[in-house]
Amino acid sequence: MSNKEETNEELQEEHMEAIDDSGVSEVEAEMTELENAKAEFSEMEDKFLRARAEIANMSNRFKNERELLVRYRSQDLGKKLLPSLDNLERAMAIEVDDEQGASLKKGISMVLESVQAALKEEGIEEIPTMGEVFDPNLHQAVQTIPASDETPADTIVEVLQKGYKLHDRVLRASMVIVAQ
Amino acid sequence: MSNKEETNEELQEEHMEAIDDSGVSEVEAEMTELENAKAEFSEMEDKFLRARAEIANMSNRFKNERELLVRYRSQDLGKKLLPSLDNLERAMAIEVDDEQGASLKKGISMVLESVQAALKEEGIEEIPTMGEVFDPNLHQAVQTIPASDETPADTIVEVLQKGYKLHDRVLRASMVIVAQ
Repeated sequence: MSNKEETNEELQEEHMEAIDDSGVSEVEAEMTELENAKAEFSEMEDKFLRARAEIANMSNRFKNERELLVRYRSQDLGKKLLPSLDNLERAMAIEVDDEQGASLKKGISMVLESVQAALKEEGIEEIPTMGEVFDPNLHQAVQTIPASDETPADTIVEVLQKGYKLHDRVLRASMVIVAQ
Repeated sequence: MSNKEETNEELQEEHMEAIDDSGVSEVEAEMTELENAKAEFSEMEDKFLRARAEIANMSNRFKNERELLVRYRSQDLGKKLLPSLDNLERAMAIEVDDEQGASLKKGISMVLESVQAALKEEGIEEIPTMGEVFDPNLHQAVQTIPASDETPADTIVEVLQKGYKLHDRVLRASMVIVAQ
């Protein structure tokens, strides 16, 4: 081997070292780090997108829940007032023949109308019953009579207790007598 | 310049080219890309953390809102029923001397108790008034009388209309006469 050839070989070695120190292997290390960084970004982006979807879901869920809470807010109090409505209506059926009685009934009538109006504003109304076709979702049959030409089968012929609903929810089914 | 020297120079040039092609400048490009990727990750992480904080906030906000909606759900219907309570109490004050009157008053008394019980279950109660110290948050003074030894200044001496509150909220202040 000549001296020049040795120098040449040394240079080649230096060349390789140079590549080793600041070249290919470092690039490979950087590539791995870059790939890791990109993978971490991707993972974080995924977490962010899921969190954003969760925010949208929560927002919708609570909007619906809030609407239901408002729509049916008077369900409990309304239900508890139904026996009072019954009692007021029973009192209205009592015959009176003096001024005190008439005065009392006038008061009862005012209260009855006022309570019914307040309930109606909250969405609570009497279930249509008399003369309607029997509907087991709205009416409870406690007695039957034979059907006739005037009262065909499934017609409600008498209401024993009024039923009430809050919007689409039945607070209390009507108690009825049905033709069968 | 000898032939060997030329070869040596060529090799050195190649060496530099090698560094240029796959060495320092590529590393710098990778570094920039890596820095970008890290910055993007950091930005995304920040967005994720803010989204997570928003989820926690929303959850708390809706929990509180839901509690308030349930706690005060009977505010509107309760408020609308107050004139009926007044009317029922006025009716109870009417004197009767026959059986029909007594029967009516018995019915009214049942309705009154039932409505009061239903309201109480929802958190609606009469504001303590008679003999209490006047509180402008709870009572509305519509008239005054001179204070005396038995009724010192600021004592409520007469209730003209009962007041009601729903938990801590005043639905209707008591209308009162106060010693001054």
